[in-house]
Amino acid sequence: MLAGKIALEDAYNARDRDGLRLADELERIGYLGPEPCVPRAFRAYLELHIEQGPRLEEEGLSVGVVEGIVAISWSRLTLHGVQDHAGPTPMRSRHDALVAAAEVVTGVRRIATELGGDLVTTVGSLVVSPNIVNAIPGRVALSIDMRDPQDATLDRALPLLDRVVQEACEREGVRYELEHYWRVPRTPFDAGVVAAVERAAKASGAGWRRILSGAGHDAQYMAALGPAGMVFVPSRGGRSHCEEEFTPMDDIEHGANTLFLAALDLAGRA
Amino acid sequence: MLAGKIALEDAYNARDRDGLRLADELERIGYLGPEPCVPRAFRAYLELHIEQGPRLEEEGLSVGVVEGIVAISWSRLTLHGVQDHAGPTPMRSRHDALVAAAEVVTGVRRIATELGGDLVTTVGSLVVSPNIVNAIPGRVALSIDMRDPQDATLDRALPLLDRVVQEACEREGVRYELEHYWRVPRTPFDAGVVAAVERAAKASGAGWRRILSGAGHDAQYMAALGPAGMVFVPSRGGRSHCEEEFTPMDDIEHGANTLFLAALDLAGRA
Repeated sequence: MLAGKIALEDAYNARDRDGLRLADELERIGYLGPEPCVPRAFRAYLELHIEQGPRLEEEGLSVGVVEGIVAISWSRLTLHGVQDHAGPTPMRSRHDALVAAAEVVTGVRRIATELGGDLVTTVGSLVVSPNIVNAIPGRVALSIDMRDPQDATLDRALPLLDRVVQEACEREGVRYELEHYWRVPRTPFDAGVVAAVERAAKASGAGWRRILSGAGHDAQYMAALGPAGMVFVPSRGGRSHCEEEFTPMDDIEHGANTLFLAALDLAGRA
Repeated sequence: MLAGKIALEDAYNARDRDGLRLADELERIGYLGPEPCVPRAFRAYLELHIEQGPRLEEEGLSVGVVEGIVAISWSRLTLHGVQDHAGPTPMRSRHDALVAAAEVVTGVRRIATELGGDLVTTVGSLVVSPNIVNAIPGRVALSIDMRDPQDATLDRALPLLDRVVQEACEREGVRYELEHYWRVPRTPFDAGVVAAVERAAKASGAGWRRILSGAGHDAQYMAALGPAGMVFVPSRGGRSHCEEEFTPMDDIEHGANTLFLAALDLAGRA
């Protein structure tokens, strides 16, 4: 919102799964203040976060000097087959939306294998209708998430996705709608901030490497307003947003020291 | 319940999606009577139903003389992968429950292709957790429905299903539970009733054929209590349990006449 990506009204009116409205809840807990939500000049934005991936842990390093955030593409696909009874409908007469969807899931995985490198492709959400044991699925809606350090890789992956979907649907005789509805180009962080984080990592005595973030972060939006950068610490097994999320205390200390030293450096106090 | 397949208490306590209890609703509409629900002797049970499949329509026939109901097998499968962030998790580290599930869906279809004949195989229900765009699915639960005129075919299909699941899960490094929880052997209808239905179909002047039902029906349970049989009429496109369900009036007339003449015949009045 601060970065102008979301309108204030939209943010206020956002509701959670239980229908609670953000502005109402902010007011309820005393956080709805009079301060206008507009960016003010800043020297640099710094953010400390767990990697949410396995690379730092695998290499036995404590700190990631984050160079930027990968390019991201989100698509949604709806498959329209023919709902029918699972018993008396012969295999030759079927237009099964889930069979087509399964080929898309497999095909989305194959795109990553074929293009290789750091491309990751994921079908995270898939919803079947009517979703009962003895009905041939008439409709399936699913999501496709693709990410790569290079925008050009996504430019190559998206037509492959189009083909995967088209071929799966032709084979099963299923109609579809495919929408590439969200695309974020690679966000490079400010070279000066990245250099300051690197100096700080060295000075902190941490084992470190330069790294790219595979997930979106606040720093991505702040980078649109001014010099931004990030410090990563390892996450065990790459796990995040779950109960197993864990970072050893030594790594947290190295990360915090790197953040502190980089902030002093950028403030001209180092 | 009449056939002893469901206990009276269980039926009374059954609830629909909205939590309404059957016994309460029967009472509310004045249908909860004092009559004990026990079978009484009957000469024959007859049932008229749409085919729910395309065969009568394809062959331009009005009446199916139903010889029995196919053998049915239901299984449930739960796949336990590793839920993780779709961005920073490299493809090589993934244990994606949905990728394994997709291979199972494709494999279940392949079982029908390989064994051929009248075997039908369907994954009708599939539920993904946590089911969000940017999370690698940690858990998928799905159903497998398999049906064939011959019990022996299901005896061959079930081990193939075991192997499909095992191989898909090994490939993706995913743990699973597979349960073959329901099996109904082929139900042959009473030879005398089938013969009476056939005589009635001929006498009605309908175009007819002998046919096997791919779906379960009340007659399946009544067959456990006494002589039972069925009359099928065509359903357009094989569609059923949907708004498109349709049977031409001529066929309905032939079906009703067949039912009537068969009932007279079985009652010794023809």
